[in-house]
Amino acid sequence: MNEPRRWQAQIRDVVFGHGVTVVEPVNLYECVIGDECFIGPFVEIQRGVRIGRRTRVQSHSFICELVTIGEECFIGHGVMFINDTFQLGRPAPSREFWKPTVVGNRVCIGSNATILPVTIVDDVVIGAGAVVTRDILEPGIYAGNPARKLRSLPQQQHGG
Amino acid sequence: MNEPRRWQAQIRDVVFGHGVTVVEPVNLYECVIGDECFIGPFVEIQRGVRIGRRTRVQSHSFICELVTIGEECFIGHGVMFINDTFQLGRPAPSREFWKPTVVGNRVCIGSNATILPVTIVDDVVIGAGAVVTRDILEPGIYAGNPARKLRSLPQQQHGG
Amino acid sequence: MNEPRRWQAQIRDVVFGHGVTVVEPVNLYECVIGDECFIGPFVEIQRGVRIGRRTRVQSHSFICELVTIGEECFIGHGVMFINDTFQLGRPAPSREFWKPTVVGNRVCIGSNATILPVTIVDDVVIGAGAVVTRDILEPGIYAGNPARKLRSLPQQQHGG
Repeated sequence: MNEPRRWQAQIRDVVFGHGVTVVEPVNLYECVIGDECFIGPFVEIQRGVRIGRRTRVQSHSFICELVTIGEECFIGHGVMFINDTFQLGRPAPSREFWKPTVVGNRVCIGSNATILPVTIVDDVVIGAGAVVTRDILEPGIYAGNPARKLRSLPQQQHGG
Repeated sequence: MNEPRRWQAQIRDVVFGHGVTVVEPVNLYECVIGDECFIGPFVEIQRGVRIGRRTRVQSHSFICELVTIGEECFIGHGVMFINDTFQLGRPAPSREFWKPTVVGNRVCIGSNATILPVTIVDDVVIGAGAVVTRDILEPGIYAGNPARKLRSLPQQQHGG
Repeated sequence: MNEPRRWQAQIRDVVFGHGVTVVEPVNLYECVIGDECFIGPFVEIQRGVRIGRRTRVQSHSFICELVTIGEECFIGHGVMFINDTFQLGRPAPSREFWKPTVVGNRVCIGSNATILPVTIVDDVVIGAGAVVTRDILEPGIYAGNPARKLRSLPQQQHGG
């Protein structure tokens, strides 16, 4: 009988800001998580990820290498980021084929959304279950598979 | 180096009926789970949730505050409930902005479905991967993003 | 106060090939996992599943009974397989109503995809967030809800 190598989900080599809360079990390694962030249970965050202060990452989400997320974002439950688009019709044979994702500040991503490698500007809402396949370069509310702009954000007073 | 606060996923202050089975790790707190329910692994159920008897909640699902689920329901794998619709274009600044979800009896929700705050009557099937954005007020089979009615339920003998 | 039965996610009665890596916590039981496979954290694989060599199953995925997966496949994050289509308008009353899924070799399934009981031939790419409701009988790239063929695979040299 063969025995598998067993690794354990863990917190390893993470640079935390002050006042961060994490609900274990999680698998977080070699990433940077800003001040006052919240990381829910059953979350994986991979090496090189940077998350700005006061961002909340809810349960069951996966944030892969080459993703950068801004400040005061809300990453819902079951949100999956992607860096390999299988552009050769198979998994990338090496990291040079991976592509980055940059998420601005005050971006809210609904639960079960899927984020291909894109750029998302500040002040964007992405609906639950959306599949984001292209850059989002203006603020607003986006949803669907593939995600399209539904409407502008409601007027709001900042500082609320 | 900062250290995060580490909480542990756990079962805390849950009122269980008789004959409930839970596969850990799970994060269940301040909720009510009826007789003979099954809760799979990697599930989170938040405070105030009520689940009727003989309902099964499969692995990887998330049930948030303000959700009530009836009897003999089947909540598939990776199903995400939502109470905050980001109606201000950002996370709700307080709980008064959250909205409730009520799921009737004998409702089957397919895996990876996403349920916005809605009412769902008895005897509904929601297809896998559906995104439910509106109330479902008559029995039948619903699927898609956004979910629409596909057809009526097959005739069936009750008690089968 | 009632106490629930508590089971623990675990590795039980699994036949592993050589060189398999598993990141716990996982719930794997009564299945066969081929040489040099990788199984990420928060994964459940049920009884009777067979997975070919060098296949990678990423975090948060669920593989149910009656699923067979070939060699050198990539199962993304949060992928859910299904064997019960609720064909009676409710969960199958017995296993005879469940249906099998067969996935060929070199199949890549994007994150958050949902796979109803189907056959998928060799050399298929399924986009992130897709819902596969019908057999996929020719190689190519498929996406959407429900999934449709987008285009053929890029020409490629094998052995790359």
